[in-house]
Amino acid sequence: MATPTFNNFDSEKKRVLEDKEDASRKGSIDAPVIELVKYINKQEDYYTTSSCSGRIIVFSENTQTGKEGTLWLLTSHETVSIDNVLSILKDRDIPISCYTYYKFEPFVLHVSCRTLEHAQAILRIAVSSGFKNSGISVSKKNKMILSVRSTQTLQSPVAFDGKLIVTEQYLCHLVKISNEKLEDNFQRIERFYKLVREVCIPTEPPPPIKPNCLNNSHSLLKVQEKKKERVDDDTSNHDYLESIDQLFH
Amino acid sequence: MATPTFNNFDSEKKRVLEDKEDASRKGSIDAPVIELVKYINKQEDYYTTSSCSGRIIVFSENTQTGKEGTLWLLTSHETVSIDNVLSILKDRDIPISCYTYYKFEPFVLHVSCRTLEHAQAILRIAVSSGFKNSGISVSKKNKMILSVRSTQTLQSPVAFDGKLIVTEQYLCHLVKISNEKLEDNFQRIERFYKLVREVCIPTEPPPPIKPNCLNNSHSLLKVQEKKKERVDDDTSNHDYLESIDQLFH
Repeated sequence: MATPTFNNFDSEKKRVLEDKEDASRKGSIDAPVIELVKYINKQEDYYTTSSCSGRIIVFSENTQTGKEGTLWLLTSHETVSIDNVLSILKDRDIPISCYTYYKFEPFVLHVSCRTLEHAQAILRIAVSSGFKNSGISVSKKNKMILSVRSTQTLQSPVAFDGKLIVTEQYLCHLVKISNEKLEDNFQRIERFYKLVREVCIPTEPPPPIKPNCLNNSHSLLKVQEKKKERVDDDTSNHDYLESIDQLFH
Repeated sequence: MATPTFNNFDSEKKRVLEDKEDASRKGSIDAPVIELVKYINKQEDYYTTSSCSGRIIVFSENTQTGKEGTLWLLTSHETVSIDNVLSILKDRDIPISCYTYYKFEPFVLHVSCRTLEHAQAILRIAVSSGFKNSGISVSKKNKMILSVRSTQTLQSPVAFDGKLIVTEQYLCHLVKISNEKLEDNFQRIERFYKLVREVCIPTEPPPPIKPNCLNNSHSLLKVQEKKKERVDDDTSNHDYLESIDQLFH
């Protein structure tokens, strides 16, 4: 049976990549995934529609006003220091009547794929690289978007009603945990990019393989591969991760 | 073009549902989603492979020993009280050399679908009910699993090396936030179940519609629909949620 195909793929790809390297609304690609995104966009059968390399954020969300009320205090795509975090929480006015959260968000990538088969190929790679919450969305017109998502998570309230509700020592713990998760996240991206290069036949000559396949300027990429891989954040005792794994074996 | 179809669907469905109502390894369905799961399993073209209604958990994870080292201190599919949480953290020995986390996990449902079209139909419903991280996984043999997932999240370290690192007041905040998220989660499940009933043509006479479509014995389901829906936990400024939404409009 022929695989479902998005008939307007080429015109859509041309349209969205016309003036930029990625269809993200923010108009730029995070440094740690520039090479990966460019590589995918050079493939004939794929293009990225949005990406975030993973980040550590601090934000206040006023539940009275909804999402528009979100105040961004910190957004970092690199590891942070306790001094960064303290200066932000102490020097700036923290909004009242709402919680301020410290959060780690892992890598997210959205890839438009020409056919279901193309989407399946990258989905397999994503899952085996550690992005176990990845999945495909298909519209009625067979537009296929593969979402690469991880189960990594950390979200702690740190202030309420304008006042800190945690100690400086607690913030040190959050900094340590989130930095480790970010490093682990970058290692997963490396594995993913390596497999993408193995599976995708480039339509242009590929760039030379560097010792570290991500953007070398990124300080985090000097992190040594850990002897024992970090345990996934998914603590569920239900067996869905296993069932997704089984799908590909 | 014919939609991709999993040829062994009927025999697989028969096999996995032979002795139980759901293929979950744990062998039972959480009370708040029993009716939903049973309803889906009565459909000719679907069966559930695993489910979790959403829960509040406290666990210690020894990163030295990996996932096997996880110690479960609390697992609740209902709202919790500060007394519950305090008694657990004070009365039990908290493991040393590791973090103990307080976490909210939202509803997760995995549905095996006969064809891609069947998977698409439930995916649309899931996204519009608030489960925006939902997606389809497709194996080489066209086995299709739809995963229903939300962006809701909360995960805070509360103890390290056997000692609490937060105050009782902070735990009260976590209890409040996680209970609100759990209630919001149940409202999303209600919306989802309502839409599933509208879209799926039952192969058996449907059960009478109750005022509250979930298991009525569940205390949380008396929660009034809030005037303003809670903001999604997804704080990303990249536009992937929007791009997934657009797929269906």
